Amino acid sequence: MTAPDGTKRCAVVGGGAWGTALADLLARNGHDTVLWAREEDVVDSINARHENARFLARFPLAPSLRATHQMRAAVADRDLVIFAPPSHVLRDVASQCADAVARGATLAVASKGVERETLKLMTDVVADCVPGRPVVAISGPSFASEVASRQPTAIVAASDDREAAHLTQRALSSTEFRVYTHDDVIGVELGGALKNVMALATGILEGLGLGFNSRAALITRGLAEMTRLGVAIGAQPATFAGLAGLGDLVLTCTGALSRNRSLGEEIGRGKPLDEALSGRETVAEGVLNTQSARALAERADVEMPIVNAVHCILFEGTPVKQAVSDLMSRELRAEQDD
Amino acid sequence: MTAPDGTKRCAVVGGGAWGTALADLLARNGHDTVLWAREEDVVDSINARHENARFLARFPLAPSLRATHQMRAAVADRDLVIFAPPSHVLRDVASQCADAVARGATLAVASKGVERETLKLMTDVVADCVPGRPVVAISGPSFASEVASRQPTAIVAASDDREAAHLTQRALSSTEFRVYTHDDVIGVELGGALKNVMALATGILEGLGLGFNSRAALITRGLAEMTRLGVAIGAQPATFAGLAGLGDLVLTCTGALSRNRSLGEEIGRGKPLDEALSGRETVAEGVLNTQSARALAERADVEMPIVNAVHCILFEGTPVKQAVSDLMSRELRAEQDD
Repeated sequence: MTAPDGTKRCAVVGGGAWGTALADLLARNGHDTVLWAREEDVVDSINARHENARFLARFPLAPSLRATHQMRAAVADRDLVIFAPPSHVLRDVASQCADAVARGATLAVASKGVERETLKLMTDVVADCVPGRPVVAISGPSFASEVASRQPTAIVAASDDREAAHLTQRALSSTEFRVYTHDDVIGVELGGALKNVMALATGILEGLGLGFNSRAALITRGLAEMTRLGVAIGAQPATFAGLAGLGDLVLTCTGALSRNRSLGEEIGRGKPLDEALSGRETVAEGVLNTQSARALAERADVEMPIVNAVHCILFEGTPVKQAVSDLMSRELRAEQDD
Repeated sequence: MTAPDGTKRCAVVGGGAWGTALADLLARNGHDTVLWAREEDVVDSINARHENARFLARFPLAPSLRATHQMRAAVADRDLVIFAPPSHVLRDVASQCADAVARGATLAVASKGVERETLKLMTDVVADCVPGRPVVAISGPSFASEVASRQPTAIVAASDDREAAHLTQRALSSTEFRVYTHDDVIGVELGGALKNVMALATGILEGLGLGFNSRAALITRGLAEMTRLGVAIGAQPATFAGLAGLGDLVLTCTGALSRNRSLGEEIGRGKPLDEALSGRETVAEGVLNTQSARALAERADVEMPIVNAVHCILFEGTPVKQAVSDLMSRELRAEQDD
């Protein structure tokens, strides 16, 4: 299906900011690219004005990028299908289009999270729904708006299938967008899923009025417990020191205010979770991932004091100040005793 | 010399923001503490108004903290002497007071850097000047102003001498200020010295108008090359994932604008180094440490592409855009090939 000039036929499933930015990258690189979006207005604004006015407003998209409502038609006969819906709907979405995906397609997953019911990573969810194709995890420090405005960005594409990782790398790479291949799928995916919990924790500290010293300590201890969990379930520790671990964690906890961080901020200021969530159009993924992360840590018998503190605050009614002060005193022995 | 209630006699040598914050911590903890400062106005404002109006203005200091100009008298008969001058004057300062330091004193060093002429770490400089006493390196993510306002902060105290590290830990620790002991002096010190070079690099990117994605990638790759150098000269890799490595790096590159970052910003906008430096009261330590780091990397035969790019920009006339673009293309193969 590859054209003589090396271009591919590509689909992106999910018209949020990140799915749109990835589709735009593919289209700019000359690949025949179609984007499936659930929202009618997103499809219309991309096709009519080359802009995703709802999720990535004011960034001109490649004119060759087409959008559609028809998911099965979108993925049919494509060399590369990238899934980028919110993590909690990935299984639904992938199931709906599964039998339309070509036998020889490479699948990539840009959704970040751990499925709450099964504790599976996103690539495993896609492999369940669309078996028999190689699956690649895409992750790393990448605000969609900066990718869309061609700011230098570096991410990783991880797969057990080296050829699939290279195909994804070649399809997405440009002068400003660097894609490194990786073989540690578990580590790369876990970094992306857990950083949202740490973003919530960062927001909580900020809501409490704590400063940069506290934030730097939180990021350091957060990466340590992410690494601990990763190693317990088969990841390589070095992955967490890379772009999909440390890089994405630093971006999410220190870059422009993310949904997770701003939700955390409200909670840090004393708002209960249900009140903080009402009125938000999109669920902050960190809330769901706090539950998955805690369950995963329990199953793997790994101590994750920060994940635990966030869980206590969100779901167990522990007052914010008490949870943070418990965390601080607990962490006294930490630097050398992990 | 320890009082029956466990308090110590302490001196801090160096009245900058960090030296003042450390002296204030000791005094608040009940230790008999004297601060030596070079500047007359600093001594006067601390003694008269319990404030360091020049370097840490508007933070009320412990009333029991005394300041003095007389360095030798300040360090005489003290259980704990903390050195906190700028790294390039540490040898002078330590030499001046060396024979007044008690035989049984514990020495701690809060200055961060690598001596340019000898490529020695700061604890080695102090050990050269004041031999025969245990030396502790103090480092970690700690803006002085936040410490002075009792924001939660966590740092490490590293020494080959376990008892000296514990003494320093006990003297400084409080509810808000956590000190973890560590035994990797080289790693802890190197983290503090090299992060200033990375702060310059971050500023340069910001001056060029690059965004959060680029900054996160820089921090990730920066920590990787810091770790590489550390391991080559005898540090433990895990130290760089801790408070004195990752923690301090994140703080310096993402917290409030530091001297190094703001200098880097001007350079990123195209100002030559000498112009950017003129009119600054204090030298940004990153400039000196870029030279030391590059020399250290050459001696250890370790590749440090970011340090190298900063050196090219500061001292070799390489245009900023070219250096950054060389770095970006070079880094393509990085994530797995270190």
